[in-house]
Amino acid sequence: MLKAKRLITDLDEIAVALINRTNYHGFWPLLYQVATAGLEPESIAYPVRAILRRYRNANFLLAEVNGVDFEQHTVLTDVGSVSYDYLVLAAGSTTNFFGNERFERYTLGMKDLDEAQRLRNHILHCFERAASERDPAHRAALLTFVVVGGGPTGVELAGAFVELIRHVMRKDYPMLDVHQAHVALIEATDRVLATFPESLQRAALDRLRRMGVDVRLNTPVADARPGVLAFKDGSELAAETIVWAAGVRASPLAEALGVTLGRGARVKVEPTLTLPGHPNVFVVGDMAYLEGYRPGVPYPMVAPVAVQMGEQAARNIIARTRRNPMKPFRYFDKGQMATIGRSAAVLDSFGIRLTGWPAWVGWLFVHLMELVGFRNRALVLLNWAYSYFTYDRGVRLIFGVGAEERLKVERLKVER
Amino acid sequence: MLKAKRLITDLDEIAVALINRTNYHGFWPLLYQVATAGLEPESIAYPVRAILRRYRNANFLLAEVNGVDFEQHTVLTDVGSVSYDYLVLAAGSTTNFFGNERFERYTLGMKDLDEAQRLRNHILHCFERAASERDPAHRAALLTFVVVGGGPTGVELAGAFVELIRHVMRKDYPMLDVHQAHVALIEATDRVLATFPESLQRAALDRLRRMGVDVRLNTPVADARPGVLAFKDGSELAAETIVWAAGVRASPLAEALGVTLGRGARVKVEPTLTLPGHPNVFVVGDMAYLEGYRPGVPYPMVAPVAVQMGEQAARNIIARTRRNPMKPFRYFDKGQMATIGRSAAVLDSFGIRLTGWPAWVGWLFVHLMELVGFRNRALVLLNWAYSYFTYDRGVRLIFGVGAEERLKVERLKVER
Repeated sequence: MLKAKRLITDLDEIAVALINRTNYHGFWPLLYQVATAGLEPESIAYPVRAILRRYRNANFLLAEVNGVDFEQHTVLTDVGSVSYDYLVLAAGSTTNFFGNERFERYTLGMKDLDEAQRLRNHILHCFERAASERDPAHRAALLTFVVVGGGPTGVELAGAFVELIRHVMRKDYPMLDVHQAHVALIEATDRVLATFPESLQRAALDRLRRMGVDVRLNTPVADARPGVLAFKDGSELAAETIVWAAGVRASPLAEALGVTLGRGARVKVEPTLTLPGHPNVFVVGDMAYLEGYRPGVPYPMVAPVAVQMGEQAARNIIARTRRNPMKPFRYFDKGQMATIGRSAAVLDSFGIRLTGWPAWVGWLFVHLMELVGFRNRALVLLNWAYSYFTYDRGVRLIFGVGAEERLKVERLKVER
Repeated sequence: MLKAKRLITDLDEIAVALINRTNYHGFWPLLYQVATAGLEPESIAYPVRAILRRYRNANFLLAEVNGVDFEQHTVLTDVGSVSYDYLVLAAGSTTNFFGNERFERYTLGMKDLDEAQRLRNHILHCFERAASERDPAHRAALLTFVVVGGGPTGVELAGAFVELIRHVMRKDYPMLDVHQAHVALIEATDRVLATFPESLQRAALDRLRRMGVDVRLNTPVADARPGVLAFKDGSELAAETIVWAAGVRASPLAEALGVTLGRGARVKVEPTLTLPGHPNVFVVGDMAYLEGYRPGVPYPMVAPVAVQMGEQAARNIIARTRRNPMKPFRYFDKGQMATIGRSAAVLDSFGIRLTGWPAWVGWLFVHLMELVGFRNRALVLLNWAYSYFTYDRGVRLIFGVGAEERLKVERLKVER
């Protein structure tokens, strides 16, 4: 989306068509706050047409792209085909269940607004059911929240679960003993936040444990059943909420292209970000496989890489139209950060490593600035201020996607 | 909900159990703004448990009530039964399709958050499809928005459609001629806002027509097909958006009770709001049929009547526990109002009749004050200020309920 903007600004003699399956640009780093009743979904989504309004040479088509006919220079969508001179593919990524359908079926994902809203509804419904559940074992399962995957998403979600329980559940459900609630973070390797410096990994782990998160390192998962997560060592954990944050893979569009794929089903691209043999087709973002730092290590599937790749693709298209040579992509790493909870985060930028309150304030500031549009910034700021001062979560509402599944827990009980 | 609050405040020696099918209290007078992308659904819903937090004697159960066993003094829900000494039934109303299943199938309702979100997604999707539709007849149908029913909901929705088209569509879809868009308000009788004084009816009608709404009075509908509304006089109107705001009837719970029903499937109650023969069972709000002003004319199905009935039921329960006589319900009519659009409304209160800007400001103020909770007030005020100054609608996002139906239009085309 932001990459398209760059293309438009620089090339006003060219017509740009942006095709997207949704009519909004989602700001996914805050998705876990939607899933934990802190933000309304609308506050992290911004209409594409509002972004494109100011560019007379930009057009938008709401459609799902199913494939590309590279011979005919045509994009195939569910509402017809669109021809191109230059094509930039940036369809992102999807959840990676590593081929196990039961993970897909019995765990909850958190990759888009609908999934986040479904997760919010599910968690709140578990609290409601626990409040009137008399069987202690089932009540414990309703109050057990498991996150699989110790990356930034998993860490942020586990921290947010603890705060939801501590600050909201305690007041809303006085009949429930807050100590019955159990938040577990499951990680297959020996560390959380694998891409961060070791000192910050340890700080995050320490903080999570002090908050009461049951962090289980070196604990690969083996399988899932309704309400049960099974580990490789043969042990099991009963939980009505199992969130899958264990990995991502390229959008299914990558496979539909019929080209060479790298690890994670990502499309192998030239250093110029073009598809081998197709210098007018660019693949950027999570979908693109490009080894950067050293052989065998591709650029990570994170937003800053995607944004910079989009910019480079735009510069290379400009170069080609002016018959200048294209340039290889180089990633300018501004650092990374993750929030763990109230006044707790880790930040690693240009050699500066922060933890605790300073990192948290940095996190708040950067994320607020990166939101598109005044209205969304104001909404998020209002919600953050409200949550900070009241220790409350305003959006603890069960409706919309997944609300119709509110009897899922009961149904699952029967299924077992 | 608010009625329960009254019961709790006055009776802290008694245990109160509130049973509701959702976990929130919805402020329905602003629902049409959710449906027209002006407000996020979350801003007009407030968690029940947040309202009940301060009352130690109140409990909440998230459940659907399916019936009542008056012999056993038991409420039957989808998660088990609940016994009672006193029972207040306030299940509200549902859309009245007057027995025609095709109205239910081929028109869109607007009675709860999910329906409003579905309507929002549908309208935005019609704009998107119109932008790439080459057949002028189908494009016209995509840009025709019909509201059936000239009550406050119909009038407010028709006005909001015009503003959405004028202020948002014009900027977001420069390729569409805004004059192609058509908003029609269909009313079977010879007037809109039937319950208002005649001068205000005329003012509202005049204002709607000046805004460009095609108001068709004396135009009873006969039937609906996919994308077509048929009238009694044999004529038809092709429209992909047909909203049904032609009437309400009591919640299906009324029929499940096995008691005597009045018009609109409402439960006939004594003047004390009790069920005949069951002095410990109260029925209040839209569900209750009680003739007030004169024989044959029941109290209207509006929020102020419901709130005051709830209060009277609470007072009568207190009276019975203290062995005092119960008192009959009397409605204190504070007046009524409806908004038509920006700086346009009608207001009728204690003999004062206002139109235009003063009525609009009165409407804004009253509705803002009636919202529950600081956060929701701040969100709504922020959205209103944003819309007022930018002429924009921030929530023009297609996601959640109904988003998966985004190809509905295409499917309907095939079905025809």
